[in-house]
Amino acid sequence: MRKQKVSTAVIRRLPRYYRHLNDLYRAGVERISSNALGKSMGLTASQIRQDLSCFGEFGQQGYGYNVESLRSEVSDILGMNRGHTAVVLGAGNLGRALIENFHFERSGVILAAAFDIDRSIVGRELSGVQVYHADQLEEYLSLHPASIGVLTVPGSAAPRIAERLVGAGVRGLWNFTNIELNVKAPGLVVEDVHFADSLLALSYMISEEP
Amino acid sequence: MRKQKVSTAVIRRLPRYYRHLNDLYRAGVERISSNALGKSMGLTASQIRQDLSCFGEFGQQGYGYNVESLRSEVSDILGMNRGHTAVVLGAGNLGRALIENFHFERSGVILAAAFDIDRSIVGRELSGVQVYHADQLEEYLSLHPASIGVLTVPGSAAPRIAERLVGAGVRGLWNFTNIELNVKAPGLVVEDVHFADSLLALSYMISEEP
Repeated sequence: MRKQKVSTAVIRRLPRYYRHLNDLYRAGVERISSNALGKSMGLTASQIRQDLSCFGEFGQQGYGYNVESLRSEVSDILGMNRGHTAVVLGAGNLGRALIENFHFERSGVILAAAFDIDRSIVGRELSGVQVYHADQLEEYLSLHPASIGVLTVPGSAAPRIAERLVGAGVRGLWNFTNIELNVKAPGLVVEDVHFADSLLALSYMISEEP
Repeated sequence: MRKQKVSTAVIRRLPRYYRHLNDLYRAGVERISSNALGKSMGLTASQIRQDLSCFGEFGQQGYGYNVESLRSEVSDILGMNRGHTAVVLGAGNLGRALIENFHFERSGVILAAAFDIDRSIVGRELSGVQVYHADQLEEYLSLHPASIGVLTVPGSAAPRIAERLVGAGVRGLWNFTNIELNVKAPGLVVEDVHFADSLLALSYMISEEP
């Protein structure tokens, strides 16, 4: 189905498409025009048509998109049905916030386990997720392969733990530390969450307002 | 100094410019060409020149940019010297992760106070930040105005607390809840942090890899 190399900008918009389509679906909307979808997302109708054309033919001229089937197509494109499994490294405040409050399964990802070195938390279960000692990481992953490692360790520990994850077969790093990771491995994907970039953009936009 | 309406894409790149320039500055680099800066950021030299031209004249033909002065210009553009003050709403796991581990001051923002309704945390100090009862929000803000409200409350509480913040003069909402806020106020800026969008993009990129 894939026709061409998809640009980063389109990749970044795909989750937003999914989110908006999911909201529409849950609100009981059956069909939507590219105009109306664009309006709700702050995009033009032609941008929507162009984005989706990267992945195949969707919608019918004059009839718009079937919300349920487009949502399911976008979910397939995003790989939500691939059964990606994640492990969380670092069960401190941020790790715990993700384990206890973030719904991995709504993004099609199974959260399998967490790792820490703090003896007061190792061995506990957080919202049904077992916390292992970081020493057990390789052994655990050899028995239960995972594709995604969530890095919520202190920055100083990030490079080493990233190497170990990749060595144990993890293919994607979701990096919440402020460290730029230099791990190289064929096909490795690193997704950084930069809180500071987001706050600076907010600060800029406030400063611009009269 | 501002010449034109700046596009969202440029606004989103500004914090990255700042981050890269800051790293260069701290590494002792004095000058950098738009070529080299572009390379480190995955942009073309002409894109860099075009981005920065939105804000004025920087750099000298053939001499590149002075790292320290460009960093300081970008910091000014971002409003890092405006003394923006933030309050955190919700001192659960995520709120605490931000209060204890995120360096607001590195983005030029003063973290002034936190609010919660949990009696076991109200009255405590977290990394020097006082936690007040949410009932005291309006009173606090009337004495200590803040420009940014950080929303780390449960989603169900988000719309009401957002209204209250805006009513008390807050101009920017940094929204970590999964709720789309519909608060309307002149000049109000909402910056959403969508963890799910980031995880879905990662999941897509992993799925694309062979």
